Amino acid sequence: MGSERHLALKLRYDGAAYHGWQVQKGLPTVCGTLERALRKITGETVRLTGCGRTDAGVHAERYVADLRTRSRIPLDRLPLAVDGHVPPDIAVLEAVEVPEGFDAITWCRKKEYTYRILDSRIRDPFLTGRAWLYPRPLDVELMDRAARAFEGTHDFKAVRNVGTETRTTVRTVHECRVERRGRLVELRVCADGFLYNMARSIAGTVLWAAEGKIRPEEIPEILERGERSAAGPTLPACGLYLTRLWYGDGRLDEWMG
Amino acid sequence: MGSERHLALKLRYDGAAYHGWQVQKGLPTVCGTLERALRKITGETVRLTGCGRTDAGVHAERYVADLRTRSRIPLDRLPLAVDGHVPPDIAVLEAVEVPEGFDAITWCRKKEYTYRILDSRIRDPFLTGRAWLYPRPLDVELMDRAARAFEGTHDFKAVRNVGTETRTTVRTVHECRVERRGRLVELRVCADGFLYNMARSIAGTVLWAAEGKIRPEEIPEILERGERSAAGPTLPACGLYLTRLWYGDGRLDEWMG
Repeated sequence: MGSERHLALKLRYDGAAYHGWQVQKGLPTVCGTLERALRKITGETVRLTGCGRTDAGVHAERYVADLRTRSRIPLDRLPLAVDGHVPPDIAVLEAVEVPEGFDAITWCRKKEYTYRILDSRIRDPFLTGRAWLYPRPLDVELMDRAARAFEGTHDFKAVRNVGTETRTTVRTVHECRVERRGRLVELRVCADGFLYNMARSIAGTVLWAAEGKIRPEEIPEILERGERSAAGPTLPACGLYLTRLWYGDGRLDEWMG
Repeated sequence: MGSERHLALKLRYDGAAYHGWQVQKGLPTVCGTLERALRKITGETVRLTGCGRTDAGVHAERYVADLRTRSRIPLDRLPLAVDGHVPPDIAVLEAVEVPEGFDAITWCRKKEYTYRILDSRIRDPFLTGRAWLYPRPLDVELMDRAARAFEGTHDFKAVRNVGTETRTTVRTVHECRVERRGRLVELRVCADGFLYNMARSIAGTVLWAAEGKIRPEEIPEILERGERSAAGPTLPACGLYLTRLWYGDGRLDEWMG
């Protein structure tokens, strides 16, 4: 045991079996599962700071959490050591040393979420819990027009569920697009920050456009009015993935971008 | 209840939770799970004939089974009716009427299996049970040369495990290739028929070539000698998928090809 090191873990997880990232008493969470494994490996009580709270059932293709430890375990051995103590729906891809002031949540400048929809009457066994099943074919071009209406700096109150305190509900959406990738319809939203359930509510509003319940041209007005009930539903968690993260730190950015 | 209809079901399943296709007393099997659902829907004892026995843990992107029923349920309603009575790791994609003499196993003229390998030290939570994890990078070009050595009409005794009776161990492999698709290394084998564990043993022998344990040029001799111990190991079931089927019947072929 020497001086304290400050590390970041690059993670990937299938969130289906977890009540989200954040530790909750008596419920399986991704953070809790990893902290237990780290305690076994390091012999210390380790606290992880994650790059954001993902909800129950939400997945992460990329996720970053930081921790402080006095353990001397080499960085290149840490991923497999942790993987040996957590179920196969979580993987540590890499461990890197980060600057003292680093914080996985406040240093994260930009995030991308992807919402995946299988628009088919027939389910796909290989996509169970990995995409949301919508029983009719979707008009991707129309959805893309609706998605683009969310781009820019706006008050996103209309697509936020009450739950977490926040100073301001203004965010900047750098990109919001819909495209078909293989058999899936994918909505990608990249923003400097996300309000509670914002990505899933944007997806629900874009779906409303596909269903003819609203026109893409009405979206600026829906945002303007700021009433949650005027926007579409919060789509189910199973379709949502945290897919990209941007940090000021080069060692993380290289992998995240 | 009218006259008997002869139907084929086009299926897809994630085999991870099943002891293969074939009914075994006291064990969960894909066939047993479907027969139970069909009994509930039709009120009859229904027997399914599958296009082949898949082993425990083996997946099927495409699978065909036929059955006889007096139930009048419309063909377009049967898939969702069955799906409502089986877990989400099985899906009925379509039901079609087939000629009286049709038999899912003997009418199947050609099958393709695909073996998927993730060549990485780090596991992927989204591929758990869906690909075999091999901890070192694989030389796909070398593997492809080894795979091609299996093409043609040969006695495949050397890559067959004892288990099922068969008149002859001669089969025709129409195509056997290896390529990288995204992050996965994929071995595709297309043949007029497969001996027990043949696809997984071919995959194991191709892996031996990648590991330098044999040279691709030695494969004809290994087949010639016909000794199981001279060929590579039977790779784990999780990487294996039944991916294509060819029938003499146009209505099935259109979908299968």
